[in-house]
Amino acid sequence: VILYGRNPVREALRGPRAVERIWATQRAIDGEDWLRGSDTRTVDGAEIERLCGSAEHQGVCAEVSAYRYADPDDLLADENALVVCLDEVQDPHNLGAVCRVAESAGAAGVVIPERRSAEVTPAAAKASAGAVEHLPVARVGNLANWLGAAKQAGAWVYGAEAGSEAAPYDTLDYSGRVVLVLGSEGRGLRPRVADSCDQLISLPQRGRLNSLNVSTAAAGLLYGILHLRESGLDKAP
Amino acid sequence: VILYGRNPVREALRGPRAVERIWATQRAIDGEDWLRGSDTRTVDGAEIERLCGSAEHQGVCAEVSAYRYADPDDLLADENALVVCLDEVQDPHNLGAVCRVAESAGAAGVVIPERRSAEVTPAAAKASAGAVEHLPVARVGNLANWLGAAKQAGAWVYGAEAGSEAAPYDTLDYSGRVVLVLGSEGRGLRPRVADSCDQLISLPQRGRLNSLNVSTAAAGLLYGILHLRESGLDKAP
Repeated sequence: VILYGRNPVREALRGPRAVERIWATQRAIDGEDWLRGSDTRTVDGAEIERLCGSAEHQGVCAEVSAYRYADPDDLLADENALVVCLDEVQDPHNLGAVCRVAESAGAAGVVIPERRSAEVTPAAAKASAGAVEHLPVARVGNLANWLGAAKQAGAWVYGAEAGSEAAPYDTLDYSGRVVLVLGSEGRGLRPRVADSCDQLISLPQRGRLNSLNVSTAAAGLLYGILHLRESGLDKAP
Repeated sequence: VILYGRNPVREALRGPRAVERIWATQRAIDGEDWLRGSDTRTVDGAEIERLCGSAEHQGVCAEVSAYRYADPDDLLADENALVVCLDEVQDPHNLGAVCRVAESAGAAGVVIPERRSAEVTPAAAKASAGAVEHLPVARVGNLANWLGAAKQAGAWVYGAEAGSEAAPYDTLDYSGRVVLVLGSEGRGLRPRVADSCDQLISLPQRGRLNSLNVSTAAAGLLYGILHLRESGLDKAP
């Protein structure tokens, strides 16, 4: 696999993947200390674009071992684990952007379905700014079934929905194991996935469009959950 | 100006811009009711890509009048106005993504500097899913000066910073007029802009990277501010 971009390659060096080879432009090497120590091959930008197949390489690419997905059941080990599930999010940029938010918010990991989902490709790694190298991402055959098993394991499952059936997210307390399920842009959660949630929740909608990208919805909900966990049940009227 | 994408063109029809001409593929017309009533010209995808210069057109583009920027001083008219400022954010996708979040969170508008900032281009309109057609966006010659004037007008100015000088965002109450300033990815706020803030605030950092895209930082902070405004001063330990 050829990763590209400065953050993705730097984080791959710090993470579990084997980094076989690095190519970088002289300009990138001049700007990034960590490229100097390693046996980086100096090439021009056109060669890097040819190697990685993207113009977004920022002068760096690397050949690394395949992404190692996590075991989904390991993600709920901690009694306060916060896990994000993406229901058929197909855009690798959205998957990567959600992983970046999840990593920064201290989530235990991200769960995606094996089919009809973006995978942890180099494009997703780039959009995550390298966060996927440190954040466990797990794949499951059937997301609704896994949510059922997560409930059996003591997790409370919240599904993000814009509709009127959803509770304002900030009226709940989110203690213990929490699973947050987000749907794809446009279609939202599939009915069986929504039915597998204990509770549907929504962010306030104060605009005319009220449309959010999945990564900004994840940010609003994850930071809200962190806050509400620490402040206890919300006392708002 | 040639806008492209389904949401941007649909919202331009609903907003203040004059829409001169619309081009769409037969497939787009079949999928979007609102394209049928208007005198849309049916063309193929290659022609749309040629007209708008982007492959992300989703089968629709339109010639519209230039974007009309708002008067920055109008944005603070409401006594509970919430205004977002972007300090030299140069990526139009990031500008658009922040506008989309700001619109959905009910912000009064977004303020950008006239120089070294992305403008409301068709790429920004696409990234905003058309939100820029309804959300006021204003340009100012000098952002630090404008923040000073905003403080004179009774606003409290918060700057988003990851550093240790920043207060946890959820220890404040955000009553009255609020201005939230976000910096560019990588560089953060310029020193003079940071100095112009009443208070620097940060989201919790629970990961190894702790790096957020500006639109997800905006989402975490804006929805947090909406919640804290309604629940009064946070009672967390």
